[in-house]
Amino acid sequence: MQSTSNRVYINEVAPRDGFQGESVFIPTAEKVALIDRLSTTGLAKIEVTSFTSPKAIPNLRDAEEVMCQIRRAPGVRYTALVPNVKGFERARACQVDEVNFVMSASESHNYANLRMSCEQSLAQLAEISHGARPSSIFVNASLSTAFGCPFEGRIHEDRVFAFVQSFLDRGVQGVTLCDTTGVADPRQVQRLCEAVLKRWPAVRFTVHFHNTRAMGLCNVLSALNAGMRHIDASLGGLGGCPYAPGASGNVCTEDVVHMLQQMGYDTGVNLEHLIAIAQHLPALVGHEVPGQVAKAGPADRRFLGPAPIHLLDPVLDWLDRCDV
Amino acid sequence: MQSTSNRVYINEVAPRDGFQGESVFIPTAEKVALIDRLSTTGLAKIEVTSFTSPKAIPNLRDAEEVMCQIRRAPGVRYTALVPNVKGFERARACQVDEVNFVMSASESHNYANLRMSCEQSLAQLAEISHGARPSSIFVNASLSTAFGCPFEGRIHEDRVFAFVQSFLDRGVQGVTLCDTTGVADPRQVQRLCEAVLKRWPAVRFTVHFHNTRAMGLCNVLSALNAGMRHIDASLGGLGGCPYAPGASGNVCTEDVVHMLQQMGYDTGVNLEHLIAIAQHLPALVGHEVPGQVAKAGPADRRFLGPAPIHLLDPVLDWLDRCDV
Repeated sequence: MQSTSNRVYINEVAPRDGFQGESVFIPTAEKVALIDRLSTTGLAKIEVTSFTSPKAIPNLRDAEEVMCQIRRAPGVRYTALVPNVKGFERARACQVDEVNFVMSASESHNYANLRMSCEQSLAQLAEISHGARPSSIFVNASLSTAFGCPFEGRIHEDRVFAFVQSFLDRGVQGVTLCDTTGVADPRQVQRLCEAVLKRWPAVRFTVHFHNTRAMGLCNVLSALNAGMRHIDASLGGLGGCPYAPGASGNVCTEDVVHMLQQMGYDTGVNLEHLIAIAQHLPALVGHEVPGQVAKAGPADRRFLGPAPIHLLDPVLDWLDRCDV
Repeated sequence: MQSTSNRVYINEVAPRDGFQGESVFIPTAEKVALIDRLSTTGLAKIEVTSFTSPKAIPNLRDAEEVMCQIRRAPGVRYTALVPNVKGFERARACQVDEVNFVMSASESHNYANLRMSCEQSLAQLAEISHGARPSSIFVNASLSTAFGCPFEGRIHEDRVFAFVQSFLDRGVQGVTLCDTTGVADPRQVQRLCEAVLKRWPAVRFTVHFHNTRAMGLCNVLSALNAGMRHIDASLGGLGGCPYAPGASGNVCTEDVVHMLQQMGYDTGVNLEHLIAIAQHLPALVGHEVPGQVAKAGPADRRFLGPAPIHLLDPVLDWLDRCDV
């Protein structure tokens, strides 16, 4: 699916990757209201929640309620993160369109995040994939720390290729390459994205970047240059991995959409509407969020000069005539 | 000077573009100490201060003291911003290596910022350039709002070309294209940078980006792709134009240096040293700064896992054997 088309598909992950790290519980009704608003903006997909242990991620302990209470808009896919078979069973019971299975490319991060070895995670994936077939649930697998691990450092590309092949061997239909702790640089992203798209042209690949070291949007552009067209992003730039020290927010949805629209890409998203929703986010989570376009306004925003410029014109004309 | 070389030259503008907008006066001795530390990091150039009206920019009212008290390191160029002939005379008296004349591509912004028409600014430039010749001061001209103006919107490329030609006609040796209020997008940057480098291959061009809408680092990469090799950046991402509503910080020096080094560019800068200096910045200015690498650490920073991984190995082996 290496593409030179202008169409980019945005997967909104704030309700999952954003909310999971919040210290204060966000009421279920507020989550549902936010997702319902997001459903009307033109986003391609929304990662609604995570079917994980309520002890591990207390803020998403209402996964079933949220998933079942949202109003599903036609044309939007609703997905949820699942780390294991148990999570998948819960997600399936809520009739998700898609599940996003997650595991890490590095043993240490997989253990820190999921308390499993990579081999154990792959076994879970096989079972999930098998269980998804009868109900036609699309199975996506997210490979965390695909560009580098906070414990083990740079991940060799061959290891990534091996995991992608393992995913596909187990019946996965889409793969997300995740820079979980914001260590990827744009050259690395371009190289890895080109390589996987060349090897597996029929697979739907997505990229997932964190902006921990200010490289997030650069990495989005590199991935697009390589032919990627599916991008994870989080409203307001909310997010981070609770088991990844130093990680800060995901790339910010409205900042990504704004930049891509300025560049002539078609995201299908109503930016004005998205910004309006993002502007409510600080009140919802109780703190400032990193996104910038919701604060500064889009690039085509106009300001009044210190005096309306038509009033200055005669002055400027006069000054010009003085030939100062 | 369109270049495919790996060498990138960083011009540090925090002491000028960063400090000018601070509401509390930064003591002269602290400015001098910061610049002296920055001089040892491998930066190519430092914009030390601005010779403007102390009423307009009170925080830089000590321009002469700072310029004369810093220790000049061999190999570093020391420049200062000048908006007019009067500023130039003051800068020359301090024996700057270079002056950075500034004016805007849009009449309204030039008037808001400098209380002059563009024609009047060009007349000032001609006089400055003439005055610089006997003392061999290098004259750089920065074109503010070159990519767009908060009052007038997108600036036509032909207008930029005309200003560049006007600068060169008046004896300018270097030109900086400034995205003063952070409205440029990466495609626009690539196009404009390629165009000016093609038209004037012998001129030293620099780019100056603000990160107002999160596109700053993307624009740096686009400019590098186009062949630019001189980049303005500000320690900690400090900065903004006091007369440009909505403007926030410049691109952050340590974030830029970090990304470029990760990508294989040679900035000549000691990143560790730079980060150490940046980490003192919040205490100096009395508030948080936008830079991210000084908070998160470089991408190759390693963390200890929840337990040292070699202690987990036997557990993982055992789990593997259980074939969970």
